Amino acid sequence: REATEMMEQIVHWVREVPSGLGRPLLAGTPAAEPMAVPMMLLSLVAQLGAEDEALMHRYAELGDWCTQRILRHVQRDGQTVLENVSEDGQELPGCLGRHQNPGHTLEAGWFLLEHASRKGDPELRAHVIEKFLLLPFRSGWDPEHGGLFYFQDADGLCPTQLEWDMKLWWPHCEAMIAFLMGYRDSGDPALLRLFEQVAEYTFRQFRDPDHGEWFGYLNREGKVALTIKGGPFKGCFHVPRCLALCEEIAL
Amino acid sequence: REATEMMEQIVHWVREVPSGLGRPLLAGTPAAEPMAVPMMLLSLVAQLGAEDEALMHRYAELGDWCTQRILRHVQRDGQTVLENVSEDGQELPGCLGRHQNPGHTLEAGWFLLEHASRKGDPELRAHVIEKFLLLPFRSGWDPEHGGLFYFQDADGLCPTQLEWDMKLWWPHCEAMIAFLMGYRDSGDPALLRLFEQVAEYTFRQFRDPDHGEWFGYLNREGKVALTIKGGPFKGCFHVPRCLALCEEIAL
Repeated sequence: REATEMMEQIVHWVREVPSGLGRPLLAGTPAAEPMAVPMMLLSLVAQLGAEDEALMHRYAELGDWCTQRILRHVQRDGQTVLENVSEDGQELPGCLGRHQNPGHTLEAGWFLLEHASRKGDPELRAHVIEKFLLLPFRSGWDPEHGGLFYFQDADGLCPTQLEWDMKLWWPHCEAMIAFLMGYRDSGDPALLRLFEQVAEYTFRQFRDPDHGEWFGYLNREGKVALTIKGGPFKGCFHVPRCLALCEEIAL
Repeated sequence: REATEMMEQIVHWVREVPSGLGRPLLAGTPAAEPMAVPMMLLSLVAQLGAEDEALMHRYAELGDWCTQRILRHVQRDGQTVLENVSEDGQELPGCLGRHQNPGHTLEAGWFLLEHASRKGDPELRAHVIEKFLLLPFRSGWDPEHGGLFYFQDADGLCPTQLEWDMKLWWPHCEAMIAFLMGYRDSGDPALLRLFEQVAEYTFRQFRDPDHGEWFGYLNREGKVALTIKGGPFKGCFHVPRCLALCEEIAL
């Protein structure tokens, strides 16, 4: 049916010819693998497999392939996760290579935790908790004002993105899912405490007590920077997915 | 020589086939004319003509054409300048159409003032001062913390750009040039006072008294948000152009 045809097309784009993904590349663009690509594909593998055992078997090898590609973003002797690596899995030069996105790493984290559950692989689970949950939280949580930074630089330099120190709703959604799932799968109470820390900040800062829904964009200090509740990137997706998954995990 | 050949190529791209400008368009992108295109071309006309009288005559019609295209961005019965208009000069629907960039409007303002001087056209000069200098300053200057906003929405709605309320160095450079040039050309002391207001904010907030150079990116309150002094968009361009032109105007 339509979904599996589309899936074949996407797999072709990801693994063979990338022309259908993203924007046409300009000459001189450095060849880089953004973590987004294997990560989103792993999420599709999980979605399609959840509904259909035949599809689950069909995409099992693809899920392993995605996992290996995501794990290559753990760099510097396992001390950091980088958003972009070279096509052969090495750190890239310059700020592109040092670029970090803590919310994205945490989101990849719970995709990988689900994969580890499907595989029954406790070693992968422990690795993912350490590298994709605890590392980005340690470096990405603002010690001064709370909340997760949007972007960081692996050397601690100033990122070049103007919005790097803003607090966005979606990294906090992903962090809540990741820590609650990590707690469920490992039983480690430290992960439950981190879930509570993120949830406390999130419901205090993003929720609009007067008119419902969540704001999406706070400045570093936690003040609402954009009053919009929906926009080009904030739709009806991250918040309900987070709340539904957390409720499902907590049951 | 090389510069005029390149100029012919650019004129071809701007007036006939836009394939060489910007990024390849994706299907579904609304046809829009960003003010940047005729504005940058007008600046090239001025640069090439300044060095060579034959080139000045050769590009005179092109300068008029650019001016007419820029003036089409004055919309809503002359009450506002919009960054993007349709190809036939109408306001576009949605936030793309309402998008405003006060610093860009002020920069276009002094390009147009130079054109009005070359033409000896006091009517154009008065129109430009009203629409491209005073309008963006009135709407774009932050009454609370001072400084020019980066982006605004013509209906006063919240812009969708995360960095909309940041204070960037270059709009302040362009504003200083525009107001000082407007004062020189018109003799209106109100424009000199606006120059002084912008210059006072600029030298107080952007200059680094300890290590020289200017910071480029402040948050709304005027605190340094990015500690970098150079980056993908801040090079050795706006600051020296501003200081050199202001000194030249003041002589």
